[in-house]
Amino acid sequence: MDNFRFCVGTDIRFGKERLAELPEVLAEYGKKVLLVYGGGSIKKNGLYDKIQRLLKDFEIVELAGVEPNPRLTTVKKGAALCREQQIDVILAVGGGSTVDCSKVIAAATFYEGDPWEFIKDRQYVGKALPLVDILTLAATGSEMNRGAVISNWDTNEKIGVGGWEMLPKVSFLDPENTFTVSKYQTAAGSADILSHLFENYFKNTEGTDVQDFVAEGLMKTVIKNCPIALVEPNNYDARANLMWASTLALNGLTGSGKGGAWSCHPIEHELSAYYDITHGIGLAILTPRWLKYVLNEKTATKIAQYARNVWQVTESVDELAARIGIQKTYDYFKACGIPMTLPEVGIDEEKFELMAQQAVKHSDIENSAYVPMTAADVVGILQDCLIESSYL
Amino acid sequence: MDNFRFCVGTDIRFGKERLAELPEVLAEYGKKVLLVYGGGSIKKNGLYDKIQRLLKDFEIVELAGVEPNPRLTTVKKGAALCREQQIDVILAVGGGSTVDCSKVIAAATFYEGDPWEFIKDRQYVGKALPLVDILTLAATGSEMNRGAVISNWDTNEKIGVGGWEMLPKVSFLDPENTFTVSKYQTAAGSADILSHLFENYFKNTEGTDVQDFVAEGLMKTVIKNCPIALVEPNNYDARANLMWASTLALNGLTGSGKGGAWSCHPIEHELSAYYDITHGIGLAILTPRWLKYVLNEKTATKIAQYARNVWQVTESVDELAARIGIQKTYDYFKACGIPMTLPEVGIDEEKFELMAQQAVKHSDIENSAYVPMTAADVVGILQDCLIESSYL
Repeated sequence: MDNFRFCVGTDIRFGKERLAELPEVLAEYGKKVLLVYGGGSIKKNGLYDKIQRLLKDFEIVELAGVEPNPRLTTVKKGAALCREQQIDVILAVGGGSTVDCSKVIAAATFYEGDPWEFIKDRQYVGKALPLVDILTLAATGSEMNRGAVISNWDTNEKIGVGGWEMLPKVSFLDPENTFTVSKYQTAAGSADILSHLFENYFKNTEGTDVQDFVAEGLMKTVIKNCPIALVEPNNYDARANLMWASTLALNGLTGSGKGGAWSCHPIEHELSAYYDITHGIGLAILTPRWLKYVLNEKTATKIAQYARNVWQVTESVDELAARIGIQKTYDYFKACGIPMTLPEVGIDEEKFELMAQQAVKHSDIENSAYVPMTAADVVGILQDCLIESSYL
Repeated sequence: MDNFRFCVGTDIRFGKERLAELPEVLAEYGKKVLLVYGGGSIKKNGLYDKIQRLLKDFEIVELAGVEPNPRLTTVKKGAALCREQQIDVILAVGGGSTVDCSKVIAAATFYEGDPWEFIKDRQYVGKALPLVDILTLAATGSEMNRGAVISNWDTNEKIGVGGWEMLPKVSFLDPENTFTVSKYQTAAGSADILSHLFENYFKNTEGTDVQDFVAEGLMKTVIKNCPIALVEPNNYDARANLMWASTLALNGLTGSGKGGAWSCHPIEHELSAYYDITHGIGLAILTPRWLKYVLNEKTATKIAQYARNVWQVTESVDELAARIGIQKTYDYFKACGIPMTLPEVGIDEEKFELMAQQAVKHSDIENSAYVPMTAADVVGILQDCLIESSYL
């Protein structure tokens, strides 16, 4: 196990009917609130009105229309608003995109210069506005970590950035706020959670049973509860388990103490950067192909562990167990209604070479991934995504 | 899943050779440090000298001799020292007892009146001195939570108390500091970790897959790594997994969102209060008897889940799978060298009735335990602990 620092003090308010606590929470930081949200689903489901009623004694400035892959232009707009209006605290209401965008706005407010500079540095060091969020989608885990991903459409780049001060102060996690999430987004969000767990699970650091066994538990939680939420969107416990799993999957719990670069995320970021597809869908498509690509004598043990502990595969030969586990992963995503080839989401071979090069350039997969990959390897994985696959 | 609040911002510095960070960490709170420790093992293993060298620019006041079941008299002594010497920050070096004692000293320093008052209230509301700790034993999880257990030898009472401000600010977790922990204490600590997981796992709240599957992962971690640490005390990864598991077993991760009282801990607290035995040993002795006692048609499903997911029991009939799981738990503790009957730790029937009454009085096991228990039930469980048991 590697050395690590774990310090994630976000105050999680989990459960039903907790928004009455919102005014007291925000009042700790001031009276002037930037309300950040996305496409307006919070107006349809009544959350927007509820917040307006609760915050009648606050001065609210709005930033609406945060994109599913939040854009640098929106960050700049938000930061300008915060400075002009002397905002005290940001209230993000939405999924990971809205929270991510708000984090970078919180930082950019205090940054002199183009925020793309520190985003490209991957790291923000400095002050940020306090951020409170109300989560409406179980997926990214952004509600309890210091990271954010921002897209720049001028350069077709999608880059992750982190900062000590970007951690949300308080996150309201009410599973009922996810009842109206569509089947497609529920499945995509679940694939995102699983991918975070896979990325941390498949690493080369030895002696990390805590992280790995906890990750397996979270994987089983998602695998069990996503189909329930698809069939019964108002099933509170299914939504609650997905929501809390999404938070724990990327708050450091399963990644701390393990080194090395992630694999599928850097590749997916290029798919989203060039085609603006749903992040979790891209991850679901890539994951089984990637696992097949990296399966070798050395990795078979761990992939077989995954197959046995998560999918109850009983096969005793590691490589075969691993293949069965990969097949089960593929079948599961397909059963959840995820389109499992790139052409189904409008992506063909045209930009494979370019995206592969960018994936290698924007990450460390060539050096420190679970199995290091060159641009040629990435092209191979992308080509596997053109047609339906079998792993047995 | 029940509503919950999860807010545990302790800054965990995990790994080797991190103590160089200690002066900077303490300096944030001041220059005057109360150094709290136990029986002097930190003098034997060199930790005491290392701390003295690192803190040469600080003014150190010492409180040595914290007992394995820390006493109210020591809390009072520590609080008096903090007031007299105008201490800025407490540095606890030791296991859970030392950290627990330090937490209550930190609170009692600001409490006018006998600290036993707020301990009996189970809750401390108010200011506390900041607390930093260097952990030397994987067991109680005190390094990342707000609770503490204090014994009062005037009244033979051992009571748990919690307080919002009692959460350690920074905890240094270096697995190497546990290399010198004896086999007996390693096994006892592991039993304590497992018991925390069992207490949270066996509850009646429905729909808590996250908590339960994560708990199963942590149980498997302890079950795998304790025997390795017993055979190879200097095995870093085994010690690291035990240490990090101990922290996560009681930081709210597996308990948040689940309601109801614990069962074995209230009974064990009476054993310790009257006989001063090692907490984890008492828990190991009680656990299989308690599980057998509460096994019924309703609980068989969950105990069988434990047996299958943690012990790989393949039996398909729930009640039989549960019995096999209980037997495996018993055999495991015994194989770890734990004396598995009460007479072996010097306890006979004499005070069973009294301790049972006290366990019921000091807790809510009669009303809200997994299976509610009267004093007569507790006596039954204690009587089962008189001889070696079989569960099949």
